[in-house]
Amino acid sequence: MTDNRAESWTEDTLLGGRVRLLQPAGGLRAAIDAVLLAAAVPARAGQAVLELGCGTGPAFLCLAARVPGLTIQAVEADPALVPLARHNAEAAGLAATISQADIRDALEPRFDQAFANPPYWSRGTASPHALRRSAAHEGEATLADWADALARGLRHRGGATLVLPAQRVAEAMAALKAARFGTVRLLPLWPRAGVQAKRVILHAIKGGRGPDAVLPGLVLHQGTGFTPEAEAILRHAAALPYGSPESGPSSA
Amino acid sequence: MTDNRAESWTEDTLLGGRVRLLQPAGGLRAAIDAVLLAAAVPARAGQAVLELGCGTGPAFLCLAARVPGLTIQAVEADPALVPLARHNAEAAGLAATISQADIRDALEPRFDQAFANPPYWSRGTASPHALRRSAAHEGEATLADWADALARGLRHRGGATLVLPAQRVAEAMAALKAARFGTVRLLPLWPRAGVQAKRVILHAIKGGRGPDAVLPGLVLHQGTGFTPEAEAILRHAAALPYGSPESGPSSA
Repeated sequence: MTDNRAESWTEDTLLGGRVRLLQPAGGLRAAIDAVLLAAAVPARAGQAVLELGCGTGPAFLCLAARVPGLTIQAVEADPALVPLARHNAEAAGLAATISQADIRDALEPRFDQAFANPPYWSRGTASPHALRRSAAHEGEATLADWADALARGLRHRGGATLVLPAQRVAEAMAALKAARFGTVRLLPLWPRAGVQAKRVILHAIKGGRGPDAVLPGLVLHQGTGFTPEAEAILRHAAALPYGSPESGPSSA
Repeated sequence: MTDNRAESWTEDTLLGGRVRLLQPAGGLRAAIDAVLLAAAVPARAGQAVLELGCGTGPAFLCLAARVPGLTIQAVEADPALVPLARHNAEAAGLAATISQADIRDALEPRFDQAFANPPYWSRGTASPHALRRSAAHEGEATLADWADALARGLRHRGGATLVLPAQRVAEAMAALKAARFGTVRLLPLWPRAGVQAKRVILHAIKGGRGPDAVLPGLVLHQGTGFTPEAEAILRHAAALPYGSPESGPSSA
């Protein structure tokens, strides 16, 4: 370890080696949440996508590893993380613009997809995830602020994707409705079959007027490892399937 | 059929014969929704409970068959259904007060539990369920009105339980939060394993400040019949289990 960078950063991989990521050796590490968030963004090749609160970039890097030709803009409030996110994007050969900014700053309403993994301390609950954020910049942002920022960045009928603790699901849905999102789809992430969801993915359409939906979601673990469905996403870069409304039988 | 009542009403049973119910032969029949709603109300023996929009009474009848000693108040806007609900309550030997009223009328904030199966036509979508309601009385009530009415009827920290189409889940969560409910628990009702939920149960606490939760929920059908879990509720009057937060492992 003669390089002093090695003492403060580490290089890690995601998606079975498809994504390489420099991140601070201390503090919060890129987590499974970012990978699942990226897997849930229904972007198509060549679209313009916006990530709010990108950290060192794990989510947009994973999305770009799955969907080719994206134009990526990302915003991060912590000035210590922005250079790492830029390095990671450049090393991956991505057309990405990463800005040091608060999510409440102005955004152009031009993106097809916008996504975020908001920090989730709340009501005095300490969380390791909070360490990633600079409280001075984003600590005061509420879920309503995040929903508003996603709406401001999206074109009409653009899609927002969020990963959140299940314990904030009602607050998040209310924030999305207040920000004029509709067609809200809830995709629970079950730690194991038959237990409460710990995280949820929410997808919503700006100006959407279609039905909301509660999807079967994804079971992450079985026995001592991941389920095959989780493996497909985490190691083989598969998309998180939303399914179609037609996949359910008509009778309850 | 010499009795002309037999031409307009039928007597039916629910919960494996534990509940008997006179209902109009035409129009909407008591459905599985009402039975599942009753199974999801976490009332304790001797509590005061309020049903809004009771129809002929299937939900409060099923609840009373499971939980002894309840004091029941129910509200129904349709004057044709109120006498049937009263008859059904009396035949079951229940201490029930059934009022013909709009849910938006005044309510005393004294109930431990309040519950509803709101009519679910919306945005011009015709639904058989709408036939049960008199449009002049309740057709204009929104989910926000239902959430407000539940809040007005409950004591502080009382619990509200709703059964709703999954396609209105975000609208309903937003309405509950706007009516000052918290600690919202979502219990999906899956027609079959692996498909979208068609209905959801929502439980929320008036003034609640605890975490929201997404519960594993209930799978209703497998093969050509009900699952054992659904059978236990529908035929043997079991409660719908919410589970405890401790039932999930700590890792996602």
